[in-house]
Amino acid sequence: MDARRFDTAVYARRLAAAMAATADSGLDGLVITPGEDLRYLLGSRAHTFERLTALILPAGGEPSLVVPRLELASLKGSAVGELGIPVRDWVDGEDPYQLVTAALGGTSAATAVTDSTPALHLLPLAVMLGVLPVLASGVLRELRMIKEECEIDALVQAGAAIDRVHAQVPGLLVPGRTEADVAADISEAIVAEGHSEVAFVIVGSGPHGADPHHGYSDRTLQAGDIVVVDIGGTYEPGYHSDSTRTYSIGEPNDDVAQHYSTLQQAQRAAFDMVRPGVTAAKVDAVARGVLDAAGLAEYFVHRTGHGIGLSVHEEPYIVAGNDLPLAAGMAFSIEPGIYFPGRWGARIEDIVIVTDSGARAVNNRPHDLIVVPVS
Amino acid sequence: MDARRFDTAVYARRLAAAMAATADSGLDGLVITPGEDLRYLLGSRAHTFERLTALILPAGGEPSLVVPRLELASLKGSAVGELGIPVRDWVDGEDPYQLVTAALGGTSAATAVTDSTPALHLLPLAVMLGVLPVLASGVLRELRMIKEECEIDALVQAGAAIDRVHAQVPGLLVPGRTEADVAADISEAIVAEGHSEVAFVIVGSGPHGADPHHGYSDRTLQAGDIVVVDIGGTYEPGYHSDSTRTYSIGEPNDDVAQHYSTLQQAQRAAFDMVRPGVTAAKVDAVARGVLDAAGLAEYFVHRTGHGIGLSVHEEPYIVAGNDLPLAAGMAFSIEPGIYFPGRWGARIEDIVIVTDSGARAVNNRPHDLIVVPVS
Repeated sequence: MDARRFDTAVYARRLAAAMAATADSGLDGLVITPGEDLRYLLGSRAHTFERLTALILPAGGEPSLVVPRLELASLKGSAVGELGIPVRDWVDGEDPYQLVTAALGGTSAATAVTDSTPALHLLPLAVMLGVLPVLASGVLRELRMIKEECEIDALVQAGAAIDRVHAQVPGLLVPGRTEADVAADISEAIVAEGHSEVAFVIVGSGPHGADPHHGYSDRTLQAGDIVVVDIGGTYEPGYHSDSTRTYSIGEPNDDVAQHYSTLQQAQRAAFDMVRPGVTAAKVDAVARGVLDAAGLAEYFVHRTGHGIGLSVHEEPYIVAGNDLPLAAGMAFSIEPGIYFPGRWGARIEDIVIVTDSGARAVNNRPHDLIVVPVS
Repeated sequence: MDARRFDTAVYARRLAAAMAATADSGLDGLVITPGEDLRYLLGSRAHTFERLTALILPAGGEPSLVVPRLELASLKGSAVGELGIPVRDWVDGEDPYQLVTAALGGTSAATAVTDSTPALHLLPLAVMLGVLPVLASGVLRELRMIKEECEIDALVQAGAAIDRVHAQVPGLLVPGRTEADVAADISEAIVAEGHSEVAFVIVGSGPHGADPHHGYSDRTLQAGDIVVVDIGGTYEPGYHSDSTRTYSIGEPNDDVAQHYSTLQQAQRAAFDMVRPGVTAAKVDAVARGVLDAAGLAEYFVHRTGHGIGLSVHEEPYIVAGNDLPLAAGMAFSIEPGIYFPGRWGARIEDIVIVTDSGARAVNNRPHDLIVVPVS
């Protein structure tokens, strides 16, 4: 097995399931362009370019691929060869949208396309089909949301790897260094600990911690800073880590300690609520409720979590209004935060996997506010 | 000026030109989601996520932005603030497609969207508009194709930076090292020489050189290898380098030397053909003609070149059938290659800029087959 993908049998099973789901949805076919859906279905790492590559799954038919001749090499390492999927290569001057339509059986009243398909390809395809496609996420959602054992293994290994990075963070948070200095060291550690790529690094110190989407800057760390460190990477074959811990350079004041303790309760309460049948919205509501009871609800300005897998953000979203019942195998973050504009912020984030009776965290570093002694 | 974007006046001029081009095209408006078009128009480095960010340019109206509240920080560093563009932020639960439609004036019979807009955003927008949009490249093509002086400066600096990397390549091509070893050193050099990011690295040795889209592998270099090295990076504010040279580890045999010399003539002939008014297809035909005369046409399996700028591949494409007349300010690659499957390949690539009377190469390393002595 190529370490960059699973066994071929995994993809055979997924393709069959995707085609069954397509038929169940009353669609004529799926058109999957490069991106996470293609990686999910074929183990392909192809990228989207100006020339169309697409996997076509006609309901009740056979899968096939349309690929620019020049990019045939992009299929190397995928399961395409072993699965014996026919490949129709095309050269400049041919119309690939016509080839896709033909592969769908010449006509399609209801086609779904990958969520990431760019307008560049989607619009000519829609014109050729004569109908507006729908989103493939409607068909693939269930499949991609419920992780198989091999996917859970990858998420667990990714979680352990990012935990090893967080274990090194206290040693990096030295007053006088900049957020960017720390971020560079973290990026190196993310790869050194086994990820193939850095996905994102947030080092939000002092007032920057109050911006949940801050990256890092040239701000210099100082004693007394509260520092939000939210980091993640890609772990082969393509699954992601994502974990946040909050650090205090020197002892926190009472105000910080008290609010942080409430946040820690909120994170724990949300985790404890996770089990099959509970809705995503309910998990969000529980975290929000704990903060609300302490008068902190207005400082929790984002949803409680997002699904994770081949994408860093995917379904299920743990957010108000999402009545999706959780099910065993779902993987998502639980990451409540509190943000005091211009002052400080804090967030605690673990990736959890729904089990038959509850939840399992793939991150296992302490949830406390981690005090970094100032020498 | 922030080094990561141009002066605000550049973006003011581009926005005005884009709105004029929108009106000229008979469109009601443009909807620009994150990507190179947004970077072109606003200097914004925002990325596309599951929440919609869009710049709306209604023909005859005023530009405005729709941005998730959580991602307002992504506008930092862009020209949005200095340009005074109104920003409508939205939170989970609101319908951003409705906000876009409202910003277009409540209705639009003919809207154009960025080529990179993902189906995830394009399909709900199309449903809300009640009409299939068209591609914004039709409107922005001319603007983005004709480079301004500040863009040409960036391309020239990027070209000089990648030339400095190529100057180091002979020292890296040591028999016994793998393509991957060499690629890692090249990646480091790309950044060390002033690029902000590595865009791509191809090290195609021996038979791998015969695959124009080969990346790099664990193949070990050996004496006698011909090695195609095609490399590029991002140079702030966001413009790209892209240059190929071919190296010979030890003296090449007569067959290689002769074919390479023909390739060198083909590259030169194409370059000499570039001037305003000549079509893109003609430049391609000239390169192909030189190879054809030597019986090598069948080994030249791709187009002669592609435009370059904020994207690595953009218009104009130097390809058969493209009757676009070249104009001063256009920037593109001239990169004929010859590929002998299972044996070896060669390619010579410079980025050139059309001047008032001819062309200027931004890459200036020798075009000869570069012989690396074997010790």
